[in-house]
Order: sequence, then structure tokens, then C-alpha cells
Amino acid sequence: LIDCAVAQVWSIVVAGGSGRRFGELKQFALLEGRPVVERAVQACRPFSAGVVLVVPAGTTDEYGADIAVTGGDTRAGSVRCGLAVVPPSAEVILVHDAARPLASPHLFDAVITAVTQGGDAAAIPGLAVSDTIKRVDAAHRVTATLDRTELVAVQTPQAFRADVLRRAHDAGDEATDDAALVEALGATVRVVPGERDNMKITTPADLRAAGHLLAGEAGP
Amino acid sequence: LIDCAVAQVWSIVVAGGSGRRFGELKQFALLEGRPVVERAVQACRPFSAGVVLVVPAGTTDEYGADIAVTGGDTRAGSVRCGLAVVPPSAEVILVHDAARPLASPHLFDAVITAVTQGGDAAAIPGLAVSDTIKRVDAAHRVTATLDRTELVAVQTPQAFRADVLRRAHDAGDEATDDAALVEALGATVRVVPGERDNMKITTPADLRAAGHLLAGEAGP
Repeated sequence: LIDCAVAQVWSIVVAGGSGRRFGELKQFALLEGRPVVERAVQACRPFSAGVVLVVPAGTTDEYGADIAVTGGDTRAGSVRCGLAVVPPSAEVILVHDAARPLASPHLFDAVITAVTQGGDAAAIPGLAVSDTIKRVDAAHRVTATLDRTELVAVQTPQAFRADVLRRAHDAGDEATDDAALVEALGATVRVVPGERDNMKITTPADLRAAGHLLAGEAGP
Repeated sequence: LIDCAVAQVWSIVVAGGSGRRFGELKQFALLEGRPVVERAVQACRPFSAGVVLVVPAGTTDEYGADIAVTGGDTRAGSVRCGLAVVPPSAEVILVHDAARPLASPHLFDAVITAVTQGGDAAAIPGLAVSDTIKRVDAAHRVTATLDRTELVAVQTPQAFRADVLRRAHDAGDEATDDAALVEALGATVRVVPGERDNMKITTPADLRAAGHLLAGEAGP
């Protein structure tokens, strides 16, 4: 566990902005009796001086967060809404998907340690890519088969030096993850091993699979 | 369905070569009472004049295929073992993963039609990539975040003009899929929409999820 005397860590849990997502995604569904998003907030808790939850407008529950704030129209916009209420004393900021309730303490520890002790601006979990990934043109013709040994599929929690994350978001750009904005600054983003079980819950099948994992089923 | 008078279609179902994979993968496990590989062979059946199954040495069951042949040490080597027994009359050859029992008739129809009527050398199913994919260097630092709108995650069945597939395999090269060898010839590979349910079964959790899909469960 990180020593709060060394680095003041805050977490931003992003539960989406737009109303479309609220209806579509499963992050507010119950998973073994507790909302997915509440589990994501609780996963951040042992590592955080405070947890900010970014929710769609109209959501009234704070799901155990210290501060709840309504999000923007995009993912990056929602993170910026969260960043705006993270106190200036924060030295490290974690950004975590509300739809990932199963990230382990070990994973939080790994990304925080990489930033606080490794000297990198950011650390993110990445999994080896098992599918063959190809690039296609607008006419759906293959233009390249990528070397998947060089690729990772990225997860959260992502850990950032607070000053770098704030600078990355200053321009107001969009990206599918916060690390991409940090990369655009030219800062180093470190990849630590992700976890298969740290799945993003977006479908009923995902919710069922996560329930099996939580119940500790070894499977057939 | 394809008219066999128009194009003579044969299928190669690849159930892996090496002994390591035999123990690791779930393609010989029972899925709702029938082996995964048998379901993959049956999925090809309505579209094929014949089905060749490539199995690891020591496997005696043919799982409903017309011809069973032992595989090579690599995936491409195993496909070549299958190709060697596909008759010269075949005009279109499908290559299908034994670990994908849930490919729909619609998907088979789509890839075959693209090759027989679209004039392309090959057609493969591809799904939009939902994860953020990054490229990393040997020191696990991010070197690029890829534009995922240009990427697809590739599935099987993959359909090929027989002459092109044979030529692609002539050099004996390795690849994670057959389409990559065809691309290396400079031939056009068309991507048709893949199917979320057409999952590759490699873990107990995958097997459980496939069972739910087969049982028609809508989920919680």
C-alpha cells in the first residue's frame, strides 16, 4: 500500500456522461447485490485520500464516493469535470472506469508504485492482445495485419502525476483514454501487466461472467 | 446458401497441432453436451462439399468431419496439413477455428458470397475493437495509441479463392491467420461484419459464456 505521507493520491471514477450511455451500459446494475459502480469506487478506496465519482446528470446516488459530480458530453470531458474538484494537494491521480469493478489491490498498487517510485509520468495496465488485429480502409479492405506482440489492450486504473494529467487535459482534447492525452505531451507512459479478470462490464453477458468471478466459480 | 454448382466449397477446421495446446485449450470440451470442435465442424457442413478437420496427433475421434488429418507444429503448418487433402476441385476454401462453435449460417454465407460474387481473393469477419490499443516498446513504454476506428479484431470462418490460399501457403510462412499470408501476396482481403457471439473458446469462463448463449439466456 502506498504511504499517504509520500504521495497524496486521489481517484476519479468515471461513470459516463451522456444519457445514452446511462441506459445502455451496465455500470449501474447490481453485481452480486451491489452496483458495479459502487464496487469500482470501493476498489479505489484503500489507495485514495479521496474518491471523486463522475455521474450522468440526474443520478442522485453517490455510490460511496466522497464527491459526486455530473459529467460532460464525452469521456475526456467527464474526466475534466472530475479533475475540477480534485484538490490541489493531490500529487497522484488515478482515473478508473466505473464499469471495472474487479481491479485487484495488486493492480492499484502496481500503477501507483510505477508513478511514485518509477519516475514515469503515468502508468497504465495493459494486456497482451489475443485476437489478430488488422487495419482496414474506408472500403473495408485490409491494409495491414499488425504485429500483435507489440500491442496491448489497455485497462484502468491509470495512474498519473497530478500536474501532468492536469496539463494533458488543459487543451480540452478528446481521447479514448487519459494516457493518450499524456502521450501527446511527450511524457512517458509505462505499461504494467493488466488482469484478465479486470473486465469492463458493458453487456448482460459481461455482468454474468463477473458474477461468476466474484462467486469464485472455477467453472466446468 | 451457396449453390454448389457455382463454386465447390471445402472447409478446413483447425483444432491445433501441438500437444501443449491440446491440454490447454477448451476446443475438445463438451459444450451443452457436444464437443466444441464437433459444433465447429457442423457449422461448416451446410456450406461445404467436404470438411477436413486438422487434429493433434493422438486424437482418434473425427468429430463428424469427412477427413481428419494430424496437424503441424504451428497454426499455418496445420492449415497446410489440411490443404494437402482438400481435393483440387475445390474452388473456395474456408478456414475455421475449431474453438469457434457459434459462427452463424449468416456469417458463413457472408464470407462465401464476398469471394464468389464480390471478386475478392479472400473475405474475413472483423469486429470493431472496443478496447484502447497501444503499441509498446521492449521496455513497456507506450510508443503510440492506435486509432481504433481503423482497426478490426479478426475471426473465422475466413473464405479464400482456393488458388490464392494454396499460393499463400506455398512459401511455408507463419502468421496468426491465413488472411495475413494472402495479404503478403498483395491480394485483396475483404472484411465483413463479424459476430460478438462468435467467440473463441479458450478458457473455462468462455465455455460457460458460450453455454449461456446456446441456452438462449437473455441474462440478468
